[in-house]
This record gives sequence, C-alpha cells and structure tokens, in this order.
Amino acid sequence: MSEAIPIYEGAIDKGLEGIVACTTAISAIQDNTLSFRGYSIEELAAKSNFEEVISLLWSGKLPNSRELASIHQELSSQMTLPGELLKVLKTLPTKNVHPMAWLRSAVSISAHWDADANDSSVEANRRKAVRLTARMGPLVCALEAIRQGREPVAPRPEKSLAWNFLYLLNSGKEPSEQMARVFDTCLLLHADHELNCSAFATRVTASSLSDLYSAVVSALGALKGPLHGGANEQVMLMLKRIANMDKAREFVKAALAAKEKVMGIGHRVYKNGDPRAAILRQLSDQLTRQIGEHHWYEISTLIDETMYKEKGLMPNVDFYSATVYYSMGIPVDLYTPVFAVSRIAGWIAHAAEQFGNNRIYRPRGKWTGPIGLKYKPINERG
Amino acid sequence: MSEAIPIYEGAIDKGLEGIVACTTAISAIQDNTLSFRGYSIEELAAKSNFEEVISLLWSGKLPNSRELASIHQELSSQMTLPGELLKVLKTLPTKNVHPMAWLRSAVSISAHWDADANDSSVEANRRKAVRLTARMGPLVCALEAIRQGREPVAPRPEKSLAWNFLYLLNSGKEPSEQMARVFDTCLLLHADHELNCSAFATRVTASSLSDLYSAVVSALGALKGPLHGGANEQVMLMLKRIANMDKAREFVKAALAAKEKVMGIGHRVYKNGDPRAAILRQLSDQLTRQIGEHHWYEISTLIDETMYKEKGLMPNVDFYSATVYYSMGIPVDLYTPVFAVSRIAGWIAHAAEQFGNNRIYRPRGKWTGPIGLKYKPINERG
Repeated sequence: MSEAIPIYEGAIDKGLEGIVACTTAISAIQDNTLSFRGYSIEELAAKSNFEEVISLLWSGKLPNSRELASIHQELSSQMTLPGELLKVLKTLPTKNVHPMAWLRSAVSISAHWDADANDSSVEANRRKAVRLTARMGPLVCALEAIRQGREPVAPRPEKSLAWNFLYLLNSGKEPSEQMARVFDTCLLLHADHELNCSAFATRVTASSLSDLYSAVVSALGALKGPLHGGANEQVMLMLKRIANMDKAREFVKAALAAKEKVMGIGHRVYKNGDPRAAILRQLSDQLTRQIGEHHWYEISTLIDETMYKEKGLMPNVDFYSATVYYSMGIPVDLYTPVFAVSRIAGWIAHAAEQFGNNRIYRPRGKWTGPIGLKYKPINERG
Repeated sequence: MSEAIPIYEGAIDKGLEGIVACTTAISAIQDNTLSFRGYSIEELAAKSNFEEVISLLWSGKLPNSRELASIHQELSSQMTLPGELLKVLKTLPTKNVHPMAWLRSAVSISAHWDADANDSSVEANRRKAVRLTARMGPLVCALEAIRQGREPVAPRPEKSLAWNFLYLLNSGKEPSEQMARVFDTCLLLHADHELNCSAFATRVTASSLSDLYSAVVSALGALKGPLHGGANEQVMLMLKRIANMDKAREFVKAALAAKEKVMGIGHRVYKNGDPRAAILRQLSDQLTRQIGEHHWYEISTLIDETMYKEKGLMPNVDFYSATVYYSMGIPVDLYTPVFAVSRIAGWIAHAAEQFGNNRIYRPRGKWTGPIGLKYKPINERG
C-alpha cells in the first residue's frame, strides 16, 4: 500500500501552504471574494443575518420561513447556561487567566452536562451544535460578569444571538437596534473562512472520530494564538500605543524601515484585499464617529493606505473589526472570544463535513535528525 | 506571492497521506522501525526508562547523570496536584462522562492555576512541560478516585512516574517492582510516534502561537477518537465480546468475509509490523499467564496470525497493549487516558519543535459547492 503513495515534500515547514487538504462546500475564497455555500459575503452582509447564515452554513441552503423559525427556536431554547455549569464556572480562577483559556475550559466542561456528549449520531451532533452555538456568547458574557464580581444575566430567548451578546455583556442593558444590527453583521462576517487554522484544527481532531466538543475545544485553542484570532486584540493594542496621527506616521515609517509585519495587514490567501475588511472599514468609520473618537479610524486608514502604497499589502478581517468592537464598548481582551462566538458556526459545519467524508489526518515528517545511534550506559555520556 | 505557490491536490480527502508537513528530529519511522532521536525503540525498551526517554525527546540527547537527576527532580516537584485544582475537579460530573473528556477539561482547567500560563518563553514552556507531564498520571488517577468516591492519594515523589501511576490508581497500594517496570516500558513505547494525529493536532494549534496547554488540550481531544487513542480500549472490548477461542475463530472468519477492519490490526505507516507490538506481545504473553488468564493472549494471537495469513496485516501498538493493561488491572475506559500519560512527552517535544520553526498551518480546500448564487427573499425560497 504505502509503496503506491507518492510522497509530496513541496510544503515542508510552510504550514501546508498550497496543499489542498480536503474537498469542501462550506465557504470558498474565489475571484478575491468570500462566499458561504455559494452566496457572496457582500450580499449576505447586506441582506442576511447571523441566524440565517448559521442555517445556511449547516444545511447548505438558505432557510425558508419554517426552517428559519426552527433554527431560531432551537437556538433560543439552548441559550440559557445550566445552573450547575454556572456554579462550577464561578469557581474557576479568572485572574491572569486569558479569556480564551477560560472559554476553552468552559466549553470543555459544558460537555460534562450534555446528555448527548457520547452520542455521535447526526441527530445528537445537531443538538450539540445548537447548544455550542447558542451558548458561546452567554459563556463569554458569563466570564465578563464573573470577573467583575456580578451575577450573569439570563438571556432573552426571543431576541437574536447578537442582541443577546450585547445585552448580557452590559449586564442586562438593552442594546440599540443599530448596535445589535452592526454586531450581527460582525458575527455574520466572521462565521466561516475556508480552511483557516482553527477550522483545520477542528477537522484534525474530528478526523480521529472524536466528538464535537473535542473538535471545538481544539479550535478554540488554535484561535487563541496571536497569529490567528488573537490578531484583532493585537490591532487594538497597537492602535492604543500609537494613540494619535503624528505617532501613526512615525509608526508606519518605522515598521516599513524595519520590514516589520503590521498586525491586521496582509493575508496569505487574499492578495487583492479581504472583502470583509471593506465592510468593516465602513462600520468602523461610522461607529468611531458616533462615539466621538473618529481618530481611531483615521489612524487605521493611514496605516492601511500607507502599507498598500508602499508594500501592496491590504488589511484583513482583524484590522477594522478592532475599532468596531472598541466602539461598541467590548473589552479588548474579549475580541478573540467574540471571534469564537461567530466562528463556532463554521467550526461545526467543518466538523460535520469531516465526519461525513472522513480519513484521519496523519501526514509525515521529513527526518532531519541522526539515525542508528547506539545506546550508551549513563556513565559514558557527555 | 500566492501566484508563485504551486497548488498540490494529490492528497485530497486522504488525511494528508503522503504529505510531508514539516521537518522533524523527534521520532522517525524508517526501515520498519521506530526510533526516538536516533535510538531504536527496541534498544530503548530494553535498556532505558520513561524519565530518561522524556529527557531524550525534549533535549535531543540521552541525559548524563546530572541531567537525569535534574529531570527526576523537576518531575517529582510537580507531581502533586494543587489543592485548589483538586477541589474544582471534584465538582465536575463523572457519570456518563468519557474519561478523555474529563481529562481534556482537567488539563484545560489546570492552566488557570499555572503562573506560567501566559508566558511562552522557552523557560516558562519548560516549566509547563514538566507540570503537564508530571501531572497527567495523577490527574487520571484523581478521576478514578473521584468517580469511586474516595480521596485521591498523594504521589510519592521519590518514585518514578510509572510506579506512581499504579500506586495512585490502586489507592496507595504499592505496585510490585515487576509491574512498575512493565508499565514503565508501556509508557516508554507510547511516548512518541512521529506525526500521528494527536501530535499533528498539537502542532496545528501551536502554529497560531497559542500556548502549550491549548496545544496539549487539542492533542487530548484528537487522541480521544476511536481511530486514534480510543483503539486500545476498543481492542479490549472486542476481546471481551469474543471471550473464547471458538468464538475467536468465528469472529475472524466473519470479519474477513465482511472485509471489516479489525481493531488494532493494520497501520498506515508500518506495513511489515509495528515494532512496539512485538514487544507488547511478549509482555501480554507473560502477564496474562501470570494472572491466570492466558486465553486473552491466545485469542489475540489467533486474530493476529489469521489476519496476517489472510490479509498480510499486522498488529499495531494498540492490539497487545489492551491485554497488558487488562492484566495490570487498569479499568478498560482508562486505556486511552493511559496513552495520554505517556504521549504527553511526545506532544511537548512536537510543540517545542513547532514553536522553534513555525509557520501557521493553513491548507486549502477544493471547492465542490455552487458559486455565484443570488440571494433570494425568504418567501421565494423552496
């Protein structure tokens, strides 16, 4: 068998760049745009909403009225965190704990109360998918409440996931319809992105036929890294360090001179600009103006435009989402968890696709070490 | 940039079979044997021990006396689970919870008390590596104690990881030196295995420059699956269903007729036999005889030899480890956690190697869905 398998060494130590790992019909990056199940992200952002996109990503088609009502009902019924889970979550330390580490633990623990945890049937996976998606936001908001020493608020099941996130985050203060709508767009834009690192992590873990919670916990771990989900937080910290337009000019000059990577600028796959960034740029313009801090947008565009002029690099999804989240009052260290609140939709679609056409991921390594060494007794070792 | 990258589609939906993902100098599968850092597994199993192999895997060379004393001292000092962690672990449900799910949560939570959790320096990673490795066994044994309703026993720091595992598992009953030695060999044999699915999961998560806990939690999730670590447990359940030699003959016949995969038989990489299986086969022979249940070994060899004669397939590491663990009185549902108690050594070596020469894993998907669909208002959808 192995004799017949050609060994391909073309992407060693390049993060599998250029390697097609699997067939997929969830999201596509083609002609420099992103589409979910065949619908362009621009059209979905303008006309759809997060719940509809969840249904689209999971089922492959836009829901009709009955199907949309059904996904709303399913999600609504699972939004509230079980009391026993909440009790344990309150005992987890939060001080000096990265919110993504807390979320990784919280999601892993959630499985202990899930009667479907050991059932990998399509039906049980659907129920778990709904629970994971409905509760990701409430879990993030529970962390915010717990670390502030207040009781987490109960969600309002008749409202959307986006509305509830802002409601729970602000301890029961109802968000404006405009803010809820903008946040819904943010969730929609981040919902999936082909074989990004965390979607790939989902598929690798799922490929041993492990369970959905394990796959999602792996994804959360991957998203945590600064080269992936952690980037939006880094963008805001960078902007805060820069603080004003004069320093922004100096910053870009220095970064260019030192050939340093600028957080949120450039993308391995999009070379002519990330279509999500274009949408988020408009939202950033609008929202920073609304809160009277338009300089964040101005600093951002200076960096964006200079990097394009000098290096041909364009912003990715993280670059303008930073100032959008900032304008909504989301704490900076929750930007990556917010990413997870959205991307859970895509992870689940990837796990389901992997389960449906599975082969365990097991690549090879190219050996660079010694071979045939002779074991020496301990007193003869250097 | 992307224009210059050749796209390779040769391993689509084949679990990256034949794709060389990275250079590596940890373990090699060459000439049908396995070696760690250049030393054959046969020689290590005969002459070395688990702690020495941990040092070898992490540092690249066999430790001298001072270095071996140092790794012993480091591991010993970290074996005891922090009281606050144990307190939270006791509140986690264990009923109907897969032990690997529990372990995934337990390791994730451990990070909350680790002062080095947010520090990814080489020094902090070393301390975390030691903690994770020293505590994996005590965590598994804490689960066994908690679900039996008894207080976890404190480890004996002067003893080895293998000795302590058996000691803690049996609530403080000291194992015989022979049993401790056999279990040490089991840990040594399972310590690493090139780019298996969980090592690859470790590397994928680490590649976003996430932290060591996240990488190990991903690995635990991948190991949990029945196509990976879950296989040793499945082998024992299969043997128990078979129960005697007559049924064993029927079983193999039926499996061959139905062209069914037999758990623990066959390996994607070894085609002329897994060298670890040969060593474990001897231990299985010896231990099943010792406990007066040699029929488990006989049933195993009948399956093994028939599958080889009829299909040319040979047993992998899971096949004989099942009856070895059974003979040691390890509960069947802890076989996969035991795998983790050993493999943590390899995962950490892979994370360190990945951090040292990193590029984020981000392969591509081959699009098989529709494109350019037009969004329809909800009342026009089917």
